[in-house]
Amino acid sequence: MASTVTPWVGVIMGGRSDLEHLQPAVDILKELGIPHEVRVVSAHRTPDWMMEYASTAESRGLSVIIAAAGGAAHLPGMVSSKTLLPVIGVPMPTTLLSGLDALLSIVQMPKGVPVGTQAIGKPGAANAALHAAAILCLKYPELRERLAAWRKARTDEVLAHRELS
Amino acid sequence: MASTVTPWVGVIMGGRSDLEHLQPAVDILKELGIPHEVRVVSAHRTPDWMMEYASTAESRGLSVIIAAAGGAAHLPGMVSSKTLLPVIGVPMPTTLLSGLDALLSIVQMPKGVPVGTQAIGKPGAANAALHAAAILCLKYPELRERLAAWRKARTDEVLAHRELS
Amino acid sequence: MASTVTPWVGVIMGGRSDLEHLQPAVDILKELGIPHEVRVVSAHRTPDWMMEYASTAESRGLSVIIAAAGGAAHLPGMVSSKTLLPVIGVPMPTTLLSGLDALLSIVQMPKGVPVGTQAIGKPGAANAALHAAAILCLKYPELRERLAAWRKARTDEVLAHRELS
Amino acid sequence: MASTVTPWVGVIMGGRSDLEHLQPAVDILKELGIPHEVRVVSAHRTPDWMMEYASTAESRGLSVIIAAAGGAAHLPGMVSSKTLLPVIGVPMPTTLLSGLDALLSIVQMPKGVPVGTQAIGKPGAANAALHAAAILCLKYPELRERLAAWRKARTDEVLAHRELS
Amino acid sequence: MASTVTPWVGVIMGGRSDLEHLQPAVDILKELGIPHEVRVVSAHRTPDWMMEYASTAESRGLSVIIAAAGGAAHLPGMVSSKTLLPVIGVPMPTTLLSGLDALLSIVQMPKGVPVGTQAIGKPGAANAALHAAAILCLKYPELRERLAAWRKARTDEVLAHRELS
Amino acid sequence: MASTVTPWVGVIMGGRSDLEHLQPAVDILKELGIPHEVRVVSAHRTPDWMMEYASTAESRGLSVIIAAAGGAAHLPGMVSSKTLLPVIGVPMPTTLLSGLDALLSIVQMPKGVPVGTQAIGKPGAANAALHAAAILCLKYPELRERLAAWRKARTDEVLAHRELS
Amino acid sequence: MASTVTPWVGVIMGGRSDLEHLQPAVDILKELGIPHEVRVVSAHRTPDWMMEYASTAESRGLSVIIAAAGGAAHLPGMVSSKTLLPVIGVPMPTTLLSGLDALLSIVQMPKGVPVGTQAIGKPGAANAALHAAAILCLKYPELRERLAAWRKARTDEVLAHRELS
Amino acid sequence: MASTVTPWVGVIMGGRSDLEHLQPAVDILKELGIPHEVRVVSAHRTPDWMMEYASTAESRGLSVIIAAAGGAAHLPGMVSSKTLLPVIGVPMPTTLLSGLDALLSIVQMPKGVPVGTQAIGKPGAANAALHAAAILCLKYPELRERLAAWRKARTDEVLAHRELS
Repeated sequence: MASTVTPWVGVIMGGRSDLEHLQPAVDILKELGIPHEVRVVSAHRTPDWMMEYASTAESRGLSVIIAAAGGAAHLPGMVSSKTLLPVIGVPMPTTLLSGLDALLSIVQMPKGVPVGTQAIGKPGAANAALHAAAILCLKYPELRERLAAWRKARTDEVLAHRELS
Repeated sequence: MASTVTPWVGVIMGGRSDLEHLQPAVDILKELGIPHEVRVVSAHRTPDWMMEYASTAESRGLSVIIAAAGGAAHLPGMVSSKTLLPVIGVPMPTTLLSGLDALLSIVQMPKGVPVGTQAIGKPGAANAALHAAAILCLKYPELRERLAAWRKARTDEVLAHRELS
Repeated sequence: MASTVTPWVGVIMGGRSDLEHLQPAVDILKELGIPHEVRVVSAHRTPDWMMEYASTAESRGLSVIIAAAGGAAHLPGMVSSKTLLPVIGVPMPTTLLSGLDALLSIVQMPKGVPVGTQAIGKPGAANAALHAAAILCLKYPELRERLAAWRKARTDEVLAHRELS
Repeated sequence: MASTVTPWVGVIMGGRSDLEHLQPAVDILKELGIPHEVRVVSAHRTPDWMMEYASTAESRGLSVIIAAAGGAAHLPGMVSSKTLLPVIGVPMPTTLLSGLDALLSIVQMPKGVPVGTQAIGKPGAANAALHAAAILCLKYPELRERLAAWRKARTDEVLAHRELS
Repeated sequence: MASTVTPWVGVIMGGRSDLEHLQPAVDILKELGIPHEVRVVSAHRTPDWMMEYASTAESRGLSVIIAAAGGAAHLPGMVSSKTLLPVIGVPMPTTLLSGLDALLSIVQMPKGVPVGTQAIGKPGAANAALHAAAILCLKYPELRERLAAWRKARTDEVLAHRELS
Repeated sequence: MASTVTPWVGVIMGGRSDLEHLQPAVDILKELGIPHEVRVVSAHRTPDWMMEYASTAESRGLSVIIAAAGGAAHLPGMVSSKTLLPVIGVPMPTTLLSGLDALLSIVQMPKGVPVGTQAIGKPGAANAALHAAAILCLKYPELRERLAAWRKARTDEVLAHRELS
Repeated sequence: MASTVTPWVGVIMGGRSDLEHLQPAVDILKELGIPHEVRVVSAHRTPDWMMEYASTAESRGLSVIIAAAGGAAHLPGMVSSKTLLPVIGVPMPTTLLSGLDALLSIVQMPKGVPVGTQAIGKPGAANAALHAAAILCLKYPELRERLAAWRKARTDEVLAHRELS
Repeated sequence: MASTVTPWVGVIMGGRSDLEHLQPAVDILKELGIPHEVRVVSAHRTPDWMMEYASTAESRGLSVIIAAAGGAAHLPGMVSSKTLLPVIGVPMPTTLLSGLDALLSIVQMPKGVPVGTQAIGKPGAANAALHAAAILCLKYPELRERLAAWRKARTDEVLAHRELS
């Protein structure tokens, strides 16, 4: 799907090994039928490609960027410095500090350049897609129903099995 | 302005004392000409009012909610559980742990209910408004120019005084 | 037992996967013969069901609520905001931060809405049941003897094997 | 009041300097009309007096103990080891680690000896009194109305001033 | 050896499961020929036995006490409150916080009651025995030579294999 | 001096307010007679200027870059991604987390792009200049004597006043 | 006193500014009549003098060394590596991390070289003197009575004023 | 290679078990053709050998020292106190605190004695070699091309596989 339609969301990560933790974002975008692309964009190893990706994202038609990184996680913040699009950050637990370093590196942005930071690892990856979906509803109202259904399904799932003993 | 126009952004906080740290969000929304309302909504002291605020926000015409809270900061996450609108969280440094408790309480949301978390305190408050503005550009394209100008002004300010010695 | 007698204690958790860590609470309530019910009540996925559970707990005859949650652990605090019953919180170690996030999210409640927080994970689950038992002794004095015996058995167990070499 | 009526709650602290942070507990007990006594009981400097205080508390008629301590905060846990009464712990921010050391020393109790831990410092002190009140309602039902009124007053206070702009 | 000679060192721990991490202390005491006893003494489950152990240690002929505990690790500090003997504390990594909770609970003692705290887990257990040995040299000078030899052997071991490539 | 000689060291910081903490670096470079320039280069507000500064530093004749930043401190790592020169990072304590966020954001760089991180704040700023001086000695051997004298002066200062009582 | 009698205890610190926090150690040694010397010994600025101080301490007649340092606090551990005497470490809160860095740098010693670590700052300084006194009692039994009296005075002080209301 | 050529870089570690984490430094030095030696130098077990190694390093022809240590990681800082050469520190994750203790022990050096600290564990080890290479380029310009090629290869590797879906 991502190849034939202009993507609405760019999902980028600092390294291929981040995909394990970021997969829930991709899965939920698929479930919700949101066109997207998935790329490796390393702030440190490919700074020029990162600057190009970020600065051309809006003109290429993207509406939201989801950026994941671990350790000294500079990708989300640097991408936000080069675009006016909303950027969502996902801290990866790929170092020995369990993602606490990535969380602080992503969330503690200075005044002027925002990143909408999600939880460390897979729950944060899933929520990055859902936050992106909530944002996209402002532009693509038809998405709202699918998002509401996704949320309702999870509510129903809890309610159906709420009695344990 | 907030009283005569339907607000686009709801700015809410757990207690009146949070306003000191949240003021930059209000100031930037004003600078960018974004209609907004500012309310005290306590998750713990006024849970019913919180549920009502969150569940009626979309139908009242709000597009984004900025929620600030300190300590066991439940407001952003609970509001997100009751609305499909994008919710932006700002951790308040109002306890003895400098906002680290609020940061973790806001950002570590489980899969299914996202909060776009910003930095602790005033920088995060400012960025909450800018993240909201970036989101609103999808719906109100005329806002984009004002946001771009705001960002450019800060860039120019740094460049004008970049040489110290 | 829980189905035929009005439960004294409601044991609730944010998700079914919490049961692994919360089981010691259920086990000790059984050992002490304290009627109880066990439910999944998610603050984020089922906020309405949570509000209903909390606000009707007292009228249904419950005397104490034990609430367990992980990450941005909002369940104990939100339940306490909707009931006058004593609420006991148990932080679950279900995220990558080993439960430190859940501990701070549960314990750092603002003035006005208390949660009696226990240790992270299984020891805390066991102690939640014992704290509940200590509370219930005020209303059901016959329970005191069973609680005293439980505590004494553990003392005796240590004393019997205190000499290692 | 405390001198002429058998106290229901014992409020103890590791040192006189803790009173500054613990005062909200005393104030709320007074507001709610709950008979109480206030004592300095140091686990480290007066271990025998602590053991005596804890082991005689129940027979003297106390129903709940609120114990505050800072740093290596052993008082709440040790008191709980010598009584079947519910013990509520309040971490004091009296060392250079802002009470994080006291929080972990109080909350991370091993299986078998519970402490219902509250937030660090004054909010925790206030909530210790409220948790005690919630517990005492099981024994003294007439207290429930006063507790409900206290909680409602705070809700009303927020609602009355919820609109900021 | 420990049974036929008056022990110089009492090695105590909060629970039998601590022995895994504390074993290096016992091993080094044996290597150095220091008479010792090993006991389970739980501050929380056997407070009376703990008070008795601590208050009679000096009169029974002990010169040093090594105390290990995890989580809300009260044993070393409480023992020190009941004896004038030097007390050495070893934080056990038996909770989900990797021993950081035990470290703070042991080391952050208030003015008046000292504990000579060692590293978390096995390295700390080994060093507790060596710190005890250094102390005992003041009373039993013949021990000094054995301690010097132990230290020298480790130096020699490093020097013999210092060239890796 | 910095204006008439090609600078050997570029001292850059994320914002003018960092200068308070970074001043010791500038002072020591002056003391040692090391030509340098001081610039504000914001990774987030002036990303293009940062990329230009970093990528032209070597061709302009710089030998070392000292980069200071606070919070989500991306400047040192991003500069290192665009130059082969040695980059020295100094975490600024300009947020509410006392520089711990900046430390982790600077030091936890992924494999491939190094930053020689110094201590938080002023001590780190001073040491950044000394680390730069140690590096520059490889290229400018005449500097070695001045560095040795600086170090010796501090040693002598301690030795002269080492007896307190 | 320190000048005319061979000192039993060497009190050393990394820098003169540490004396503010270390003063309680000196005061208590004076109160207990324990001969001592006080010196500035910097591990980093005067490594040779540190090695000399540590390696000659025992032959000069010292029985215990109290070493205080802040930040990357290497003094206590390095001194312990060069002497068989018991070394007591006191973490100084002289950096922006409130002494947590110094605590970990002092306490986390590897197997083989022990440091008896005390609390951060003034309480730890006082307890370093008391731990030293407890150790010295093994060699100078006449000291025991003074130590017991000091401890009893503090117990009495608490008991005399234990009733607050 | 290391044995027949005067080494440019000394790679030292506190214990042989550190080699597992430090190996990437050795590997990259080999890849870049930088002569080096690898030694075990324990600050605590072999302080004299450490002092000798550090104080003779410059006269033996070394240009840079890479020092790795875990826990109370004193090796990098102590070596820096005895040499004017640039010292690069690598925190080892060999204790239960995942290297956070080693990081703080290495990076928080006082004014006067710098250590260029890298990330915890293997990424930091690799970057230590790259930081050393960047430094050595000032003295051995022919190295620059190899370093540039190494960096470019990693950039190309990312770019070649940047499209995931």
